[in-house]
Amino acid sequence: MTTSGSAPEPGSTELTRLRRLPQKSVGERAVLYDILDASLIAHVGICDQAAQPFVLPVGYARSADTVLFHGSSGSRLFRALAAGASTCFTVTRHDGMVLARSGFESSILFRCAMVFGTCRVVDGPDKLDALRLITEHLLPGRWPDIRPPSTKEIAATTVLELPLTECSVKVGASGPSAEDEAQDIASPIYGRIWAGIVPMAESFGTPVADTHAAGIPVPDYLTDWRRD
Amino acid sequence: MTTSGSAPEPGSTELTRLRRLPQKSVGERAVLYDILDASLIAHVGICDQAAQPFVLPVGYARSADTVLFHGSSGSRLFRALAAGASTCFTVTRHDGMVLARSGFESSILFRCAMVFGTCRVVDGPDKLDALRLITEHLLPGRWPDIRPPSTKEIAATTVLELPLTECSVKVGASGPSAEDEAQDIASPIYGRIWAGIVPMAESFGTPVADTHAAGIPVPDYLTDWRRD
Repeated sequence: MTTSGSAPEPGSTELTRLRRLPQKSVGERAVLYDILDASLIAHVGICDQAAQPFVLPVGYARSADTVLFHGSSGSRLFRALAAGASTCFTVTRHDGMVLARSGFESSILFRCAMVFGTCRVVDGPDKLDALRLITEHLLPGRWPDIRPPSTKEIAATTVLELPLTECSVKVGASGPSAEDEAQDIASPIYGRIWAGIVPMAESFGTPVADTHAAGIPVPDYLTDWRRD
Repeated sequence: MTTSGSAPEPGSTELTRLRRLPQKSVGERAVLYDILDASLIAHVGICDQAAQPFVLPVGYARSADTVLFHGSSGSRLFRALAAGASTCFTVTRHDGMVLARSGFESSILFRCAMVFGTCRVVDGPDKLDALRLITEHLLPGRWPDIRPPSTKEIAATTVLELPLTECSVKVGASGPSAEDEAQDIASPIYGRIWAGIVPMAESFGTPVADTHAAGIPVPDYLTDWRRD
């Protein structure tokens, strides 16, 4: 895995500078890491020749100053990414809803990281390690239990690495008082309605055993799987 | 809101036909509606002149055979969408993880809808209704309580409508037995490890009142906000 020690801070380049609502841009690498580490799925964008975008969900893992993700070697989109097509890799945490006193100031409580760039194909001795990192991010504790990948399976998988060089981080974290019009808060009608935040969280439920696994104890590591 | 009564079935056009894993394509409009109606955030893709994609999260609502979403009239990306740029509007439900006996067959349990096309700007008398539909999808029950949008707020918002014409639906719903190699299930080593599904769900937590709303009762409609 490469590490870009001198990567610019998120939001500091021409591509990543927020033109709208710049107060929501967060120039801290720790926040970028938090968003990427707390999530499992990214939405990856790619453009075809006719400027038609495609946006597809992928599982991924962060490794130092890169993100790693994988897909079928036969996939058109993965082939294009492997060939150097520009991408936008977006991870959004949805933390809740902000209920203001007007629709205009109501919003989604979110944290979003966007990574721009081109991918490097991970191959050779790094490839197995990258697959392990992705599996361990998506399924913590699982890798030592399962059958290691076969040569054929490794060949059938394309692993891509995208450096965290051009990144933009946006956090919408204000409560309604910070957004609402003062006259709405003071209004005898709208000042009386409830306003606040309704938090939202994702969590894992009770594991459901496969028919062939009935009677096999559920591994301990699964009980730690609660992300929020 | 327009209705495209003769829209092709999801996955039936050249753009939307799945080339990989076609068994995961679901040609049923009801499944498309389910995915769109159960979710709150879409990831919208757009390409710039240099084939650089941008993928941004947006709140939205489905209305008949369209999706409606809104953003700032000043946003570069919304201006480009309003001007007719091609888009890909992707909604992904993450329902859990599939733990197979190998990493290769392990996967994310997901349902994904992709809508391709160009947007129509919603203006005139339809615009307020579209804003109401979006607000009521994101914050059910809220619209009658809050201050109606001002003329200035309506002007500052661009509302876009994307028809559900070119759609692709992909559902990864198999348990591990359907995916695992028979020899892994029969293996004295790998056949003994637990395999199955760990479901995942998103839910709303306890509302947190704004400082100015302390003492105001939490509205009843908020107690219904549990999506999964």
